Amino acid sequence: MTDSNPAPYPIFEFPIRVYWEDTDAGGIVFYANYLKFFERARTEWLRSCGLAQSTLREQTGAMFVVTHSQARYVQPAQLDDLLTVTAQLQQIGRASLTIQQNVFLTSHDHTTAPAQRTLLCDGTIRIGWVDATSFRPSRIPLSLLQRLTTP
Amino acid sequence: MTDSNPAPYPIFEFPIRVYWEDTDAGGIVFYANYLKFFERARTEWLRSCGLAQSTLREQTGAMFVVTHSQARYVQPAQLDDLLTVTAQLQQIGRASLTIQQNVFLTSHDHTTAPAQRTLLCDGTIRIGWVDATSFRPSRIPLSLLQRLTTP
Amino acid sequence: MTDSNPAPYPIFEFPIRVYWEDTDAGGIVFYANYLKFFERARTEWLRSCGLAQSTLREQTGAMFVVTHSQARYVQPAQLDDLLTVTAQLQQIGRASLTIQQNVFLTSHDHTTAPAQRTLLCDGTIRIGWVDATSFRPSRIPLSLLQRLTTP
Amino acid sequence: MTDSNPAPYPIFEFPIRVYWEDTDAGGIVFYANYLKFFERARTEWLRSCGLAQSTLREQTGAMFVVTHSQARYVQPAQLDDLLTVTAQLQQIGRASLTIQQNVFLTSHDHTTAPAQRTLLCDGTIRIGWVDATSFRPSRIPLSLLQRLTTP
Repeated sequence: MTDSNPAPYPIFEFPIRVYWEDTDAGGIVFYANYLKFFERARTEWLRSCGLAQSTLREQTGAMFVVTHSQARYVQPAQLDDLLTVTAQLQQIGRASLTIQQNVFLTSHDHTTAPAQRTLLCDGTIRIGWVDATSFRPSRIPLSLLQRLTTP
Repeated sequence: MTDSNPAPYPIFEFPIRVYWEDTDAGGIVFYANYLKFFERARTEWLRSCGLAQSTLREQTGAMFVVTHSQARYVQPAQLDDLLTVTAQLQQIGRASLTIQQNVFLTSHDHTTAPAQRTLLCDGTIRIGWVDATSFRPSRIPLSLLQRLTTP
Repeated sequence: MTDSNPAPYPIFEFPIRVYWEDTDAGGIVFYANYLKFFERARTEWLRSCGLAQSTLREQTGAMFVVTHSQARYVQPAQLDDLLTVTAQLQQIGRASLTIQQNVFLTSHDHTTAPAQRTLLCDGTIRIGWVDATSFRPSRIPLSLLQRLTTP
Repeated sequence: MTDSNPAPYPIFEFPIRVYWEDTDAGGIVFYANYLKFFERARTEWLRSCGLAQSTLREQTGAMFVVTHSQARYVQPAQLDDLLTVTAQLQQIGRASLTIQQNVFLTSHDHTTAPAQRTLLCDGTIRIGWVDATSFRPSRIPLSLLQRLTTP
């Protein structure tokens, strides 16, 4: 990174355990379920910024919805795996946020940790701020943005 | 059945295919997903009686919620299986309905049908009619009951 | 309880947060998803006894499958709710275990805890020990039972 | 399209109904569930080519896994909506296939069809052919490719 670039936003980390419900008959986590893992980590990242989504909707009448998702599945997660899922703000638009998300294998087994984390999946999620009834895009409130970007 | 018993309600049948999303790493359908299959068959049974649940809620401000579920898993369904899921009204209360539901294996493979259907799972679901906002139980509208019980 | 009754097995507790994926358009947790919550708590209870299910299957060629489920939905859980899900061994058979499970509301909001926990859902799950290939019931290994019943 | 371009592969279409299980507390289909809809349509497209995935795995010891997913959510689907989900082969690699997938709203209500279909979601899925045990990429069998590309 050069001097002209601003410092990247901090990386939020969230642990997720793989249960039976997450796996499929291939013996691995079903591909759509990584998007659920992404969503849990984003929700906890928002919560860590003081933003509970149910409260947000009650207070503003608006909510975040996903407008784009992109994921690359590098290596499969399996039953009982302990994962670390990250969320990192990448780009801020008028009515949307882009978030970079990774899934790492922390522990393949409940007793021993691997020497280093392995990347299983990475992706990018764009969320838009919309009216909760009409689903029309709307400008993200400044107070909300400040919470997300102030450490 | 003796003369004093009324004729049982008709059995509604609905075909469901098993996809990757329904299975788990045991190679079989994840046990909670049979409740999803039950729900799809109940929804289609209601629809066959002229009752779309989203329309119902808009018109009455009330909706059905499940208050009890009970299931027995006899034999596992597997990927690509074609199932027949049934819904049969069993009991009508003031504010609730009890529905008997079965899951049969129709075809274990897409090319050949078995000589006879095999029972994989059976269960009983009780649904209550509640206010969509307060979730308080309320009396099922007579017009709705008539639709459910008139062939 | 009278003197002739043995002491009940200990109650295992596991915290679960409600995410978007768990809810439905009724604004509450979809009824089948409580069985997922039950399963996560059972898995963590087994893990707390030193039993990882993926390891178990590799070592014994057998696994637990659910043979009966029964649930009563008392009050709905909602987005962002923090739940406590319990698992308590109730009965031990030759080839099956019966587990009592409850879901309590711990916190309806991330900032304030309720004065006391509210019961949202309770249920009973019976799991059978089966060969992982044939799904035939088989006697639960004594060493496994000892792990489950020894504090 | 100019003469130098080959004719595009045919578009496979599959109807999917939105049930309670697919929706979330936002009142719309949960974003990860469109990937489930994509998967069902791909599975039915493969089946329409004479390829049942469970049979494929038994016969070849290999299977398809998703390696990349990309989706754009244009307009939300809602409870009771009837959707048309498409699958169209876009690119054939040595060990992978790229499939274009769309979700259209066919009917917002069970009684009336809209004048024209509305695009709700589109995406691209890349699937790789891997050994079912090691998950190592492997060359897609020619016989399989022929089935997919021969009308």
